[in-house]
Amino acid sequence: MTQPIRVTIWNEFRHEKTKPVVAELYPEGIHGAIAAGIAADGLTIRTATLDEPEHGLTQDVLDATDVLLWWGHMSHHEVSDAVVDRVQRRVLDGMGLVVLHSGHHAKVFRRLMGTSCDLAWREADAGERERLWVVDPGHPIAEGIGACIELPATEMYGEPFDIPEPEALVFISWFQGGEVFRSGCCYRRGRGRIFYFRPGHETFPIYYDEQVLRVIANAVRWTAPAHGEGARPSVINRRTPLEPGAPAQTRDQ
Amino acid sequence: MTQPIRVTIWNEFRHEKTKPVVAELYPEGIHGAIAAGIAADGLTIRTATLDEPEHGLTQDVLDATDVLLWWGHMSHHEVSDAVVDRVQRRVLDGMGLVVLHSGHHAKVFRRLMGTSCDLAWREADAGERERLWVVDPGHPIAEGIGACIELPATEMYGEPFDIPEPEALVFISWFQGGEVFRSGCCYRRGRGRIFYFRPGHETFPIYYDEQVLRVIANAVRWTAPAHGEGARPSVINRRTPLEPGAPAQTRDQ
Amino acid sequence: MTQPIRVTIWNEFRHEKTKPVVAELYPEGIHGAIAAGIAADGLTIRTATLDEPEHGLTQDVLDATDVLLWWGHMSHHEVSDAVVDRVQRRVLDGMGLVVLHSGHHAKVFRRLMGTSCDLAWREADAGERERLWVVDPGHPIAEGIGACIELPATEMYGEPFDIPEPEALVFISWFQGGEVFRSGCCYRRGRGRIFYFRPGHETFPIYYDEQVLRVIANAVRWTAPAHGEGARPSVINRRTPLEPGAPAQTRDQ
Amino acid sequence: MTQPIRVTIWNEFRHEKTKPVVAELYPEGIHGAIAAGIAADGLTIRTATLDEPEHGLTQDVLDATDVLLWWGHMSHHEVSDAVVDRVQRRVLDGMGLVVLHSGHHAKVFRRLMGTSCDLAWREADAGERERLWVVDPGHPIAEGIGACIELPATEMYGEPFDIPEPEALVFISWFQGGEVFRSGCCYRRGRGRIFYFRPGHETFPIYYDEQVLRVIANAVRWTAPAHGEGARPSVINRRTPLEPGAPAQTRDQ
Repeated sequence: MTQPIRVTIWNEFRHEKTKPVVAELYPEGIHGAIAAGIAADGLTIRTATLDEPEHGLTQDVLDATDVLLWWGHMSHHEVSDAVVDRVQRRVLDGMGLVVLHSGHHAKVFRRLMGTSCDLAWREADAGERERLWVVDPGHPIAEGIGACIELPATEMYGEPFDIPEPEALVFISWFQGGEVFRSGCCYRRGRGRIFYFRPGHETFPIYYDEQVLRVIANAVRWTAPAHGEGARPSVINRRTPLEPGAPAQTRDQ
Repeated sequence: MTQPIRVTIWNEFRHEKTKPVVAELYPEGIHGAIAAGIAADGLTIRTATLDEPEHGLTQDVLDATDVLLWWGHMSHHEVSDAVVDRVQRRVLDGMGLVVLHSGHHAKVFRRLMGTSCDLAWREADAGERERLWVVDPGHPIAEGIGACIELPATEMYGEPFDIPEPEALVFISWFQGGEVFRSGCCYRRGRGRIFYFRPGHETFPIYYDEQVLRVIANAVRWTAPAHGEGARPSVINRRTPLEPGAPAQTRDQ
Repeated sequence: MTQPIRVTIWNEFRHEKTKPVVAELYPEGIHGAIAAGIAADGLTIRTATLDEPEHGLTQDVLDATDVLLWWGHMSHHEVSDAVVDRVQRRVLDGMGLVVLHSGHHAKVFRRLMGTSCDLAWREADAGERERLWVVDPGHPIAEGIGACIELPATEMYGEPFDIPEPEALVFISWFQGGEVFRSGCCYRRGRGRIFYFRPGHETFPIYYDEQVLRVIANAVRWTAPAHGEGARPSVINRRTPLEPGAPAQTRDQ
Repeated sequence: MTQPIRVTIWNEFRHEKTKPVVAELYPEGIHGAIAAGIAADGLTIRTATLDEPEHGLTQDVLDATDVLLWWGHMSHHEVSDAVVDRVQRRVLDGMGLVVLHSGHHAKVFRRLMGTSCDLAWREADAGERERLWVVDPGHPIAEGIGACIELPATEMYGEPFDIPEPEALVFISWFQGGEVFRSGCCYRRGRGRIFYFRPGHETFPIYYDEQVLRVIANAVRWTAPAHGEGARPSVINRRTPLEPGAPAQTRDQ
């Protein structure tokens, strides 16, 4: 009865083509692994990648997308500003956006945050232990997750993370090396909902972890537009006042 | 003992040159009127305008600015992206920003908000009555203001105003024609504080109103950087963990 | 398939018994009018009132309630602290709470807000015009509502309204007499969601207005708990650390 | 020229009387150690303790207090509700409140938060290592603090911490045992500012740490009232509308 949520998973899809170890880990690409991992009734999933025309994100594709997932890392600068503009407008118009891991530096995320989205990081060869603590257990994005998610081997992201204060902070990460990080951050911009989720990597098998996939699937449902009614962001020249007797605008300005 | 706050008032300064009625109202420009109106011990004020080289906002000027005020209206698109980038970086680095009236559509404000900053509006020839209600009486920006500021003749701005949820909402406007508007909105981005303040116009004498000037002066003090110590937004590769025994990064990535 | 939301509508139910004009307007009580007005598939509705034993809010009733609506006015002080404690705990445990109109001064709302919830007000005999502007059109609570809700005759509530900054502000009211008010305010406390909605009155027929009822119905759905999994607010003595080698607690403290 | 900030440091002051190890560590009481540690020009400091009449917090004392610090642990339940009411009213009226460590369970903090303020904890005999990371380096409370504060031996506090979403989160703690905690949380309630700061203990020498004392001193300055003008929380019956022609209230209600 309810319409399915139309999901587009965007992946830079470069590491997989140039590094054998990545290709072996993610033979269908990171986008393919996530698509398989969150597949469920109620979701219609497609993918798009950097090297497709218009990065696979034509206006038609975006218009038919309820939630966009974003994974990028080495080629953020190659994403065209026209596509960034288009994605931003669709988010303000209601499309959900889930930004994953190194997507913190994606043009579109920085555009929507207004900040540098810089952070501290460390990548040990064999990774280090991370624990994502749930700080908001009743949040829809934490459904099905226990006290924390433990990942045995990850890249470290540390504070300060240059983002606006999250409207809801769902996860905070603990790292073996001594750092912490705001790992699950909720925002609203225009009519759209945005979730940043830290876990992910091209050589650690993060996107096969059941709990990470559960969070991503929850985030898709949370960022999906609640409804399509009411005003869209737009300039409205309301020349006639609502109150009787109040002065009207009589000329173009 | 305390250092003075170094204020730069930026004005598009076009209406004053092309419309006699504006030139008559603001013979020194809107920037000049505000500079005179907020002049006080503890503030060092300079001005800058669109038609100066680099719009008067060179790196040197910005580096020597604690708080930037912004008034623009008809020529937002003429502000160069390079200057917008520069202003954004300085805000993230700690510079305060006070955006006035039609500056809601300034590139730099939209950049920092991540939204369209669209709104509804109406401009009756003789204006209409507005009341800015103080909803947060203890806020530093409301100091010296009573229950509300009444302005006899203004342009109307109405909701929906496409901005992120303000971190503190200080004023809400009531309009004679039947609308409301979030007129005083506080944000933090990076290390910088931002205040949007609705009142202002090129043909109504808003910037001679004592209460409006008081709010602007308060906002200058509230957005001034608290201190200059600690981390700046930047990418930090912390290869060596803080915890003994935790794995280190051994290679460039 | 989805479980219905179990709603309990609480009404002080005193005006209806003592004032003929109220009894005539709300022959089934304000609770009865709201129950009839929001009735729909997917909602199981019961009511409770002040003069029932334990005000009708026994532990069993609250345990079987997903969303509690609250209307009170003249007898807030008669609500027992034991029931207030019980309602607060259930909200922190996940129950939604929708507080209506004069419920702003209910003990349970002030308990959850931590503030006085004081406001300004005026009640003209024939009421005055109010317009509730939607400031967040994409919010689930605004579904089905246009640019604003116009009510021809209402009691005025004005700022300053002593509440914590809302996490999402959905409606702002404009009043004929010149005031504004934050009329639709969202909060999260513990696992519970709270919505304060201003419209309502015992002698104006507010709870027969289709748009007001639509907002209340939307708010019921928005405040309903997303899920029941994960941690409840509680004190946890985790004597054994998660990290190998870290010191454990060995004694009761 | 500027008036000094009038600080009252409240301490339960029981551990010091009953446990020799605490008496030895804090011979002047925890309140005495903090008073000595933050003493500076611009601060006038007094102390108050649980066993004084009215817990040392008479109306006169509170009226002459700009910022109240609160340390309690074993005897929260002995604080009288009348004093809790009085402190809450003064905070809503503008007094700053800095709540330390185990004060998270103080009646007055739970009153102002509206939540249980429950958390997880572990107290190893010799403590464990903690690092408080600065997540908001430009915040006034972080002035003079580097990337993090490292404490060699502390009690662990862990998530979930049942508090409302902080309006600004300044510190997040990392613990040796594997947990994280929101350690520096800013709120506004009424006209008052509130800061919760985690560090502290009766047997670890936390309140002799220079950086912890620096944060407390910064917090005193940040929570001090900005000004005393404008509306106080109160019920205002504005019978006469501001707009000409709008209906007035003619009767008591």
